[in-house]
Amino acid sequence: MSSGESFVEVGRESDFPLANLPYGVFNTPENRKQRIGVAIGSLILDLSAVVDLFDGPLLHKDNFRDGHPFSQPTLNQFMSLGCDAWKEARSTLQKLLSTSEPTLRDNESLRKKAFAQQSQATMHLPAHIGDYTDFYSSKFHASNVGTMVHGKEKALSPSWLYLPTAYHSRASSVVISGTSIHRPNGQTKPDPNQPPVFEPCKKMDFELEMAFFIGPGSELGKPVSINDTSKHIFGMVLMNDWSARDIQAWEMAPLGPFLSKSVGTSISPWIVTMEALAPFLTDNFKQDLEPFPYLRHSDRYNFDINLQLELKGDDMPDSAVIVETNFKHVYWTMKQQLAHHTSNGCNLRPGDLMGSGTLSGPTDESRACLSEQSEMGKKDVDCGNGTKRVYLQDNDQLTIKGYCQNDKIRIGFGECTGKLLPAISYPFAKDST
Amino acid sequence: MSSGESFVEVGRESDFPLANLPYGVFNTPENRKQRIGVAIGSLILDLSAVVDLFDGPLLHKDNFRDGHPFSQPTLNQFMSLGCDAWKEARSTLQKLLSTSEPTLRDNESLRKKAFAQQSQATMHLPAHIGDYTDFYSSKFHASNVGTMVHGKEKALSPSWLYLPTAYHSRASSVVISGTSIHRPNGQTKPDPNQPPVFEPCKKMDFELEMAFFIGPGSELGKPVSINDTSKHIFGMVLMNDWSARDIQAWEMAPLGPFLSKSVGTSISPWIVTMEALAPFLTDNFKQDLEPFPYLRHSDRYNFDINLQLELKGDDMPDSAVIVETNFKHVYWTMKQQLAHHTSNGCNLRPGDLMGSGTLSGPTDESRACLSEQSEMGKKDVDCGNGTKRVYLQDNDQLTIKGYCQNDKIRIGFGECTGKLLPAISYPFAKDST
Ligand SMILES: [Ca+2]
Ligand SMILES: [Ca+2]
Ligand SMILES: [Mg+2]
Ligand SMILES: [Mg+2]
Ligand code: NI
Repeated sequence: MSSGESFVEVGRESDFPLANLPYGVFNTPENRKQRIGVAIGSLILDLSAVVDLFDGPLLHKDNFRDGHPFSQPTLNQFMSLGCDAWKEARSTLQKLLSTSEPTLRDNESLRKKAFAQQSQATMHLPAHIGDYTDFYSSKFHASNVGTMVHGKEKALSPSWLYLPTAYHSRASSVVISGTSIHRPNGQTKPDPNQPPVFEPCKKMDFELEMAFFIGPGSELGKPVSINDTSKHIFGMVLMNDWSARDIQAWEMAPLGPFLSKSVGTSISPWIVTMEALAPFLTDNFKQDLEPFPYLRHSDRYNFDINLQLELKGDDMPDSAVIVETNFKHVYWTMKQQLAHHTSNGCNLRPGDLMGSGTLSGPTDESRACLSEQSEMGKKDVDCGNGTKRVYLQDNDQLTIKGYCQNDKIRIGFGECTGKLLPAISYPFAKDST
Repeated sequence: MSSGESFVEVGRESDFPLANLPYGVFNTPENRKQRIGVAIGSLILDLSAVVDLFDGPLLHKDNFRDGHPFSQPTLNQFMSLGCDAWKEARSTLQKLLSTSEPTLRDNESLRKKAFAQQSQATMHLPAHIGDYTDFYSSKFHASNVGTMVHGKEKALSPSWLYLPTAYHSRASSVVISGTSIHRPNGQTKPDPNQPPVFEPCKKMDFELEMAFFIGPGSELGKPVSINDTSKHIFGMVLMNDWSARDIQAWEMAPLGPFLSKSVGTSISPWIVTMEALAPFLTDNFKQDLEPFPYLRHSDRYNFDINLQLELKGDDMPDSAVIVETNFKHVYWTMKQQLAHHTSNGCNLRPGDLMGSGTLSGPTDESRACLSEQSEMGKKDVDCGNGTKRVYLQDNDQLTIKGYCQNDKIRIGFGECTGKLLPAISYPFAKDST
């Protein structure tokens, strides 16, 4: 189905035309219950209010005696159903919302029940996230960071070009856009010749990433063949992986990042489906080595998604766009990431979250975290009007935006925003302060 | 309440006397529903069948309009209630099961409904595990491994003595005792001068660990003061952290272990509560450096728990005990681990799992993984009758047992067992084999 027109007004600059229809979980002051909705223009269509209108063979309510997927407080059940159900839902929604369809258009009382204003709604995590994995899949980012830490010759770790490097991260601290994060306290070693200290982080950073949600899960002991990986990918969101660089540097050997990352990870509330992104498929990143057969696929699975990050500090009259990059700079495709993740038999569950890693591109302005832009604190990053940053300051507000655009349509992600609050005073034990 | 006697017969060698009462989740051939039980002797008391008998102020059914914690399919809700509710449950259970109490003892039809044979039951994961963190808290283990990899001078990473090193691991692949694990396929680099290969792991290993479950959660941005940490610790299990050493060596730089660990992690089904373990409190491990104030506590929070691991291979007439160690060799206490984990504001959720790390002690037989015993493959590990191992062979069955013993009581953990099945034939994409 093409983008078409909706009876809901959708401005030309809107992220959410009829061709998008991203899924999210929201509630409103009038109805505190968390429910599933899709964004259209500046509205939300409340799917829990129109469950009966899904009359296709896969989503008909008779299939779900214990509750319809669209009556749930998260998207996990719908995610688990797989692409055919996702297609059916999209086609039903595009019909229901189209100019030519009277069911909703001409039923004022149903419209009143079924639509909410995005501006009035509170968004929640769209899924229960069983596990969150963060990849490290931009070669520009890995090379820049590696060069700063190990020098140009040893910039990439030995396995980087052979496999999509990743680490298990913390699911409990994944938060929805709009949630503020406190600057963490932690152990750091500011002076290499002195013992470490425990104090508020002094090198707080962001990482501009995207992430995808797993649809149907997989069984323990059963790798997903790379040809089947796309069946397990539901859709994508924007992500800010808050990172405490000084804590990270001290804790990281030998088991990887830990408290530097579990401070919090912010995601945008609307999951844009892979079907909505299909018009923006682009060539895969050219890989330096032919990967192992289990990581090989010849079809395109890269996406042209414009990304930017704005920073607004207390000292700034206006927000400054300090990163402009694109998802397409990612070296390893999401198919390769998933094939690798399950190659050992690791099982997936609906709602698992997979981060891309910092999405740096080839240019200076596309360096997608502060430490990369400031070369680990050595260079000022210009934020306009004489303001600058090396790392984040208290009360800095960060906003990531993302959209795809061709001459016909714009498919947007909305935004992923979050503020860095000052560190709290640490609750030491009474007998030890 | 003291151990006392139960009207249920409990042999002297039983892990599950009236003083233990560990919690688990089970079902039976007669009743497929997953439900909560406590182990007593060779029986299980089905708590869902006796919910009405919990008549204390905290667990009375009137408090739970949406379902009693003991009518749930996992322990998460009960875990979230905190120590006072745990104490009330224990005291009610010890009364109900005691020789002197007629309620169950003299009601044959209730007894028939409420008791199941452990030998007839299937055990399940006791909780929904939101996040699983694995620490690295035996100094013996970290020193032995570090010496093999980096040499004696640089054995411990620089931060090891300052903080409880840990990594976020994979929750989806935590499995209940009895689940078989397939030898994983993966990338390894057997010859340092040749490119890596993708094939079945050749250095499959176990790690004898214990783990604790989180009770009440904590809020994002609110560290738990070390004085309050024990309120968040529900109880302990045995754990085998299956580890693919060759995959680990190749993937680990710079972000830590990933697919080498998400192959599977086995835990024992019965959670022994901290209250049952209290008689076995022992001195904390003497620490080399005085820790930072946020990690300081003067009370004892170490436990004397005997641990062993048996290996039974196809080539062995009998199983061989190849590890004998004790939980008390752990350098960082569980209080320190939790205080550190939340020091950055990372939130906890009921049912989170925290592994101790490989529990090696000071002696050769207490080295608690094969790579440590075989010095990374250089020495044979004697398994009796002329059999030996360097790493695991296909069909090796591993069984961890653990118990506390004084002159009055024995508090046991039952066992954590699992078999290593051969690698599967890898499902390569059709166009790439
Ligand atoms: Ca990241
Ligand atoms: Ca481990
Ligand atoms: Mg994070
Ligand atoms: Mg494991
Ligand atoms: Ni979960």
